[in-house]
Amino acid sequence: MTQQSTGAPVRPAAEAAGTTDVLATLAHFRELVTPALRETVRRLPPEIGATVEFTLGWRDADGSPRSGGSGKGLRPALAMLTAQAVGAAPESAVAGALAVELVHTFSLVHDDIIDGDEQRRHRDTVWKAYGVGTAVLAGDALLALALDALSRAASGDTGAAAMKALSTALVELVNGQAEDVSFELRPWTGPQAVTVAQYTAMAGRKTGSLLGCATGLGALLGGAGPAAVADLTAMGRHLGLAFQAVDDLLGIWGDPSVTGKPVYSDLRQRKKTLPIVSVLAEDTPAARRLVELLAAAPGAPDGPEADGVRSEEDLRKAADLIEEAGGRALAADSAQRHLCRAQSLIHRTAVDGPAAAALAALGEFAVHRTH
Amino acid sequence: MTQQSTGAPVRPAAEAAGTTDVLATLAHFRELVTPALRETVRRLPPEIGATVEFTLGWRDADGSPRSGGSGKGLRPALAMLTAQAVGAAPESAVAGALAVELVHTFSLVHDDIIDGDEQRRHRDTVWKAYGVGTAVLAGDALLALALDALSRAASGDTGAAAMKALSTALVELVNGQAEDVSFELRPWTGPQAVTVAQYTAMAGRKTGSLLGCATGLGALLGGAGPAAVADLTAMGRHLGLAFQAVDDLLGIWGDPSVTGKPVYSDLRQRKKTLPIVSVLAEDTPAARRLVELLAAAPGAPDGPEADGVRSEEDLRKAADLIEEAGGRALAADSAQRHLCRAQSLIHRTAVDGPAAAALAALGEFAVHRTH
Repeated sequence: MTQQSTGAPVRPAAEAAGTTDVLATLAHFRELVTPALRETVRRLPPEIGATVEFTLGWRDADGSPRSGGSGKGLRPALAMLTAQAVGAAPESAVAGALAVELVHTFSLVHDDIIDGDEQRRHRDTVWKAYGVGTAVLAGDALLALALDALSRAASGDTGAAAMKALSTALVELVNGQAEDVSFELRPWTGPQAVTVAQYTAMAGRKTGSLLGCATGLGALLGGAGPAAVADLTAMGRHLGLAFQAVDDLLGIWGDPSVTGKPVYSDLRQRKKTLPIVSVLAEDTPAARRLVELLAAAPGAPDGPEADGVRSEEDLRKAADLIEEAGGRALAADSAQRHLCRAQSLIHRTAVDGPAAAALAALGEFAVHRTH
Repeated sequence: MTQQSTGAPVRPAAEAAGTTDVLATLAHFRELVTPALRETVRRLPPEIGATVEFTLGWRDADGSPRSGGSGKGLRPALAMLTAQAVGAAPESAVAGALAVELVHTFSLVHDDIIDGDEQRRHRDTVWKAYGVGTAVLAGDALLALALDALSRAASGDTGAAAMKALSTALVELVNGQAEDVSFELRPWTGPQAVTVAQYTAMAGRKTGSLLGCATGLGALLGGAGPAAVADLTAMGRHLGLAFQAVDDLLGIWGDPSVTGKPVYSDLRQRKKTLPIVSVLAEDTPAARRLVELLAAAPGAPDGPEADGVRSEEDLRKAADLIEEAGGRALAADSAQRHLCRAQSLIHRTAVDGPAAAALAALGEFAVHRTH
């Protein structure tokens, strides 16, 4: 039922305006960054290279080559398009694009260990396929390569500023992930409950930091001045917050055959995401029924040991209550609001019209994606 | 018996010349770096801060404060003493000292997960005390803080060069660790056996890289020119190789009550360390008997599943055979040779005599340590 709701932001990508163009844009930038990515990964010793190639979607666990990559390449495209938007060639930001993609992949590999997730993008996660030790090491290798790639590409003030931007984003990313994990252990209600402000701060760190780093590095490597770099970093952060709100929607109402995650996966994991946190912040009849349902579920009181013990029926009821109480609409609004702010920052700062339009369309696409 | 061998490099620290001075030097530099370290760790959210404080030896697992730190602080002392040796104030290298200590701690936390080690320095390892997920995150946080601390401290060409040095060391460190792990799976003899050259390359990456980075950053932040930075980086690498050779000796013949590791721990784990690799490289009667012993051990043929199934008696015999075949003496010689080369690089490059002498003494101490 929830899949057919009016105002559902999880509409198929093909319905979104200009999707074909955006897919072509993403493919174009993937082509620009892939040679550099392959060259970088080639520097790893064979012991770890195969695992990293599996991680990037280039190989199966048995070592056989696999066509296609692991992801959409949103972050590299954002970095290079931002460089173009400030009037530079997109190639000037290749090292930044490479670095953010590698840091993103590092974070997925380690997060899957931390969260105990066994599947990602319809494949085994790295720890599931290779063991935890190898996955720890593969993540570390990806991060090391990210730093190395960026530090080799830029020297002087630009190089120092680029490394500072990446390091700052990394601290935020790790802190955000730590907060996200700790949120799972906190109660749904009462003084210890996660507030909307705490959620937003966490999402800014966990997701906003690296998207802001992508666009900030694009601007910096594209030669923009400090004010434009700051504005375009803020732009990426807003895109990140929009992106995370959509991720939260997909985590409850996403189609498992498209997302590659179990249905209601975030509810199963007791994730304190925007739709649920915003509902529980208000004392409405639906919120009270939701609290009752969550409190009555097997495994309550709250604790990670409750994972997976809820019935599909209870999860469906919880999702419906969240929607009824307005949590779904509120998260969709939040995504749209952050997208608008990002787009206004793009148009205010960019000097290259077509690149700015492509950036705006990419943001639109990220918010209207289905997976 | 083996503890009393002549020429044993594992003599008590108190017997080494100038030990008291070196301990005072280490304490002095720990005092210089600790405020910056505390300030940095304070930037972590509470969820992860407590784990990181446990990791650094500041707290017990129950959260109660603990006096004393986690380690000797060799790397920070090397960084700051090198800055002094090139004529600068040791304080100029505090950020470098902090960064290498944090990277070192990161690598211990992740290596303990990868190796499945439950004890370090007579305490539970981080994953043992807090779980694997938290330990992965704590390691990531330490690494992020390292990069952040260094990137904030230096700008322009020096900043870019410092971040490049740290990134390069990090790639080497991770690659070295991957090689070390893969060595455990390789056979003792035959074409797939680990050669002395392969061992040395691995040790250079695993241990030499970060010690070279410590001294290199000290020189760089102390304002030395490129030639001196290169020489002092090479100096640190030699110290690292000497240090690793001593670690290998302690891994077989170290006193468990001092090292905090089980007796013969490296033999138990099938670690391909210098004493054993160098013995197996030569076709001597002792080497042949050692191969027979290793092949006859329960769990052979080689594989990680053989861990821990060897009897104490077999391990003792293996250790004796390695010593008889000259592996112990060869590793001690190697440590001494690398120490000499490091010391000659110090005296050739340093402009501050007392600092150079203290650096040389610190190297001497590291090679004559018992844990």
